[in-house]
Amino acid sequence: MSTTQTTPFTATIDLASGAIDPAPEPTVRTLGHMRGLYQDEAGTAEDQLIYRVLEIPAPANDNSNLPSSTTIIEPGRVGREFHMTKGHFHAIRERAEIYVGLSGEGRLLMATEDGEVAVEPMRPGTVNYVPGGWAHRSVNVGDEPLVFYAVYIGDAGYDYGTIEEQGFPVVLVQDDEGGVAVEPNPRYRR
Amino acid sequence: MSTTQTTPFTATIDLASGAIDPAPEPTVRTLGHMRGLYQDEAGTAEDQLIYRVLEIPAPANDNSNLPSSTTIIEPGRVGREFHMTKGHFHAIRERAEIYVGLSGEGRLLMATEDGEVAVEPMRPGTVNYVPGGWAHRSVNVGDEPLVFYAVYIGDAGYDYGTIEEQGFPVVLVQDDEGGVAVEPNPRYRR
Repeated sequence: MSTTQTTPFTATIDLASGAIDPAPEPTVRTLGHMRGLYQDEAGTAEDQLIYRVLEIPAPANDNSNLPSSTTIIEPGRVGREFHMTKGHFHAIRERAEIYVGLSGEGRLLMATEDGEVAVEPMRPGTVNYVPGGWAHRSVNVGDEPLVFYAVYIGDAGYDYGTIEEQGFPVVLVQDDEGGVAVEPNPRYRR
Repeated sequence: MSTTQTTPFTATIDLASGAIDPAPEPTVRTLGHMRGLYQDEAGTAEDQLIYRVLEIPAPANDNSNLPSSTTIIEPGRVGREFHMTKGHFHAIRERAEIYVGLSGEGRLLMATEDGEVAVEPMRPGTVNYVPGGWAHRSVNVGDEPLVFYAVYIGDAGYDYGTIEEQGFPVVLVQDDEGGVAVEPNPRYRR
């Protein structure tokens, strides 16, 4: 090997809170960043904090390197819908991703462009496998922050636009007994 | 996308013990599997358990998919050397890997083919980044099992032979005060 090699490094995750040392600049998503993604936004505030993403960057964003991140979704709802991430496909559709649950209780909502849907549990210790071709959105269905760690391939990229236009085929809402219900998304269009 | 897509799935890791549900067949490494890797094997037993690897397989071993695994290294020493994994380069040298510390205390020993060395800490919450081109070996320097979770790119592959022939440039041994010392490996050859 040449002398151009990257030097190994170590970051540290607080496995309860998702905080990372050395602390990266967080990506902060309030409701104002997500207009149009929830069904019922009446009476909501622009600055309602939904989630934060803290990234451990890789030396290069190519298919040999592995960026990773923690995501912290605050508990709460917008109308009946639980707090969730925007959700995206990978720009390179076939790239997979792994989510490791660290704290809290959630659901990982996934969908293909054909409208196939999968909903998987997220809790401390779960390893969710997001295969290529599946858009993914994480949803906090509990009363405390949902914290998870994601690992992805450096060149996967992001396609948020398809979800912004089509939506997911289903939504995750709180039912009348305080439980979690998966309902068809009336706004979904393929 | 076509209908040939892989279905998402979820496994669960016990974050303390590294056990995985559903339980995979473990790869078990005793001292008998590692003859020649430790400096002083006098009086040791073939069946001394060194480590186990539990894998969550990916749908395909290509550069779009992410196999992952837990490794549990038992505490102990062989002579003055701490229990460790065999260590390997990736067959495709440029593929990186990520280690997440879950339990116990260890060191991640890395080396390039040019003889450059890095030693990084492993403990609960550490995220060690192993860049392309670095052979990697994990070492349990504590009194309890060292447990970590690794994520790698499906086509990275394994090259154990280079390390079996050359060794690492340094060894991790217990010093006279019970601490951890990094010493030159007298058997190392480039």
